[in-house]
Amino acid sequence: MVEIMRTLKITLAYDGTDFCGWQRQPEQRTVQGELEAALASITQEKLSVDASGRTDAGVHALGQVASVATANELSCETLQRGLNAELPDDVVVTGVEDVATDFHATLSAVRKMYRYVIDDGRAADLFRRHYTWRSYHRLDEVAMQRAASGLIGRHDFVSFQSAGSPRATTIRTIFDLRVTRHEHLIQIEVEGDGFLYNMVRAIAGTLVEVGRGARDASWPAEALAATDRSVAGPTAPPEGLFLVWVKY
Amino acid sequence: MVEIMRTLKITLAYDGTDFCGWQRQPEQRTVQGELEAALASITQEKLSVDASGRTDAGVHALGQVASVATANELSCETLQRGLNAELPDDVVVTGVEDVATDFHATLSAVRKMYRYVIDDGRAADLFRRHYTWRSYHRLDEVAMQRAASGLIGRHDFVSFQSAGSPRATTIRTIFDLRVTRHEHLIQIEVEGDGFLYNMVRAIAGTLVEVGRGARDASWPAEALAATDRSVAGPTAPPEGLFLVWVKY
Repeated sequence: MVEIMRTLKITLAYDGTDFCGWQRQPEQRTVQGELEAALASITQEKLSVDASGRTDAGVHALGQVASVATANELSCETLQRGLNAELPDDVVVTGVEDVATDFHATLSAVRKMYRYVIDDGRAADLFRRHYTWRSYHRLDEVAMQRAASGLIGRHDFVSFQSAGSPRATTIRTIFDLRVTRHEHLIQIEVEGDGFLYNMVRAIAGTLVEVGRGARDASWPAEALAATDRSVAGPTAPPEGLFLVWVKY
Repeated sequence: MVEIMRTLKITLAYDGTDFCGWQRQPEQRTVQGELEAALASITQEKLSVDASGRTDAGVHALGQVASVATANELSCETLQRGLNAELPDDVVVTGVEDVATDFHATLSAVRKMYRYVIDDGRAADLFRRHYTWRSYHRLDEVAMQRAASGLIGRHDFVSFQSAGSPRATTIRTIFDLRVTRHEHLIQIEVEGDGFLYNMVRAIAGTLVEVGRGARDASWPAEALAATDRSVAGPTAPPEGLFLVWVKY
């Protein structure tokens, strides 16, 4: 009997607070580990899933995308329901689709959007403490937006990359980078064709330096031009970061 | 040396998820226990605080009020800062005030507002799972509001009281009871001169029966008139409930 393999695109949201990130690791609670365990329980196959990118511990996702090849014949709807029944309550599968067998969640991605959220209210917003970076300085979102516009475009983003994950090239394109305020929450939304390791968190950390008045709005573009990680601002903590969507 | 005692009114917010409720209990993590431990560490006194009411495990507060008598002489601002430094990150003191020595957070309260939040979205809102009651039925908030209006006024609310906390009288006044939708969230806000044990959760459970179409909008008022707990709807779970404010 010949098994016919199909490729599934799985879209999922998760609260990263209690996960040691996306990537499967022995003895650790990870999103990949939970998703593969749920798939194994439904399909009775030992499957390995790929994601659009690996999120770090504490980082959240509204629309992470994973792909997997399986011989299972259940409908997408049944698979989605089954996965949500198996998965713990901090992961939700929001979609399952059949896609071309050469679809690969990492390699086929063409555009991604991340959101970074900062709480600069006078008192901490208790119910968002796992979903924001708390700033004790009131931030100037207009200066941050002005600074952000200097990073849009196709550039070498090596100044905004953490060590530890070498890439063939550090050139990336940022299509859009918006800073908006919603009461005590500052939201940084960035759309790009791909991101270096910790790039969004380094951009957020750099824009906050401008927002609190420690640096001029022209400084992030200068730090970008310097192509030197030590020139840009600190890496913002993981809990403010959300992977919002991935386009293919 | 004669110690001069003062009474403090402490306003606080907490995320009830990881607490066994307000009330101090041996070997349990409670809000009262944490607040008294923080006060003891700052004042070196063994103090006992009173709250406007005891919230159950899982119930949240945006503006709980506690009172305490102390001989400590620190300014209110210093006390607030000190308490927030001592308290765990799921409790925040939002205000400390000197009040008349006969002020008592329980006995002096004249009006309270609670909010109950229900998530009836197609997919669960992951980031609100500890702060909403998840409904798998789409709810009709207009019918719920119509039903709610039948509970406003001065009534015997015994039909909406759980056993276990006897009161001198079960007559209470509801000044206002509003049901509003905010996208996938239904918010029930109720203002009253006082509430019986689990009264807001019983009202929420009853209104949801109407919202999902299992009962007519006229039924909650009939259940109220029956003065029989078994006639009204189920008690909604604790995680959707917030104590919003208390007036004195």
